[in-house]
Amino acid sequence: IEQAALAAFLRFAAEHKEVYRIIDEAEFVDPASYREHYETIAARIADRLRAGAAGGEFRDGLGELEAWAVMGMNVFAGLRYVVWGKGEVSPDEVAIGVNRLLAEGILRR
Amino acid sequence: IEQAALAAFLRFAAEHKEVYRIIDEAEFVDPASYREHYETIAARIADRLRAGAAGGEFRDGLGELEAWAVMGMNVFAGLRYVVWGKGEVSPDEVAIGVNRLLAEGILRR
Repeated sequence: IEQAALAAFLRFAAEHKEVYRIIDEAEFVDPASYREHYETIAARIADRLRAGAAGGEFRDGLGELEAWAVMGMNVFAGLRYVVWGKGEVSPDEVAIGVNRLLAEGILRR
Repeated sequence: IEQAALAAFLRFAAEHKEVYRIIDEAEFVDPASYREHYETIAARIADRLRAGAAGGEFRDGLGELEAWAVMGMNVFAGLRYVVWGKGEVSPDEVAIGVNRLLAEGILRR
């Protein structure tokens, strides 16, 4: 799962170059297309979460809300370590850390 | 924990009104203060995560990376449901959903 997560993260970061550029350089952007961009990605993530729950890998109750949260995790980790980073944390490490957080959360068991 | 999480989420959403406004209206913003704003919040979240791990409530290995991911979860859930939302999901439900995702992740156990 971690290799798949890494690949997904890097693909996500590439897809979001425009978003990062906007955040980083504060350029003007058309708000409607910005929102549509996010909505499309969130819908795709929500589908994957629901499929994983249906398949038994993920817990029940995952949907749109969780999809937006997952997207936010990826965007902000990518912003900090890919866009603003100076290589102190590699993309592999970012992907593994974000993936672990997503998989198991923060509570001690 | 859920009441505390709700309160924290609402406080977070209030603190981020400026960020949301920027994202939503694509206004011009000074990139340096934008970044500093996030860095300050991330440092505070990282401190809380480390304190929770030290106190035994949270698992080990939590730090700056997880803090940025947590911040992203909150920003995007708030963007979708507080800023863009039409009340279809209440702030309570957003807080509970995001909190559960953060606490236990997505894997079925």
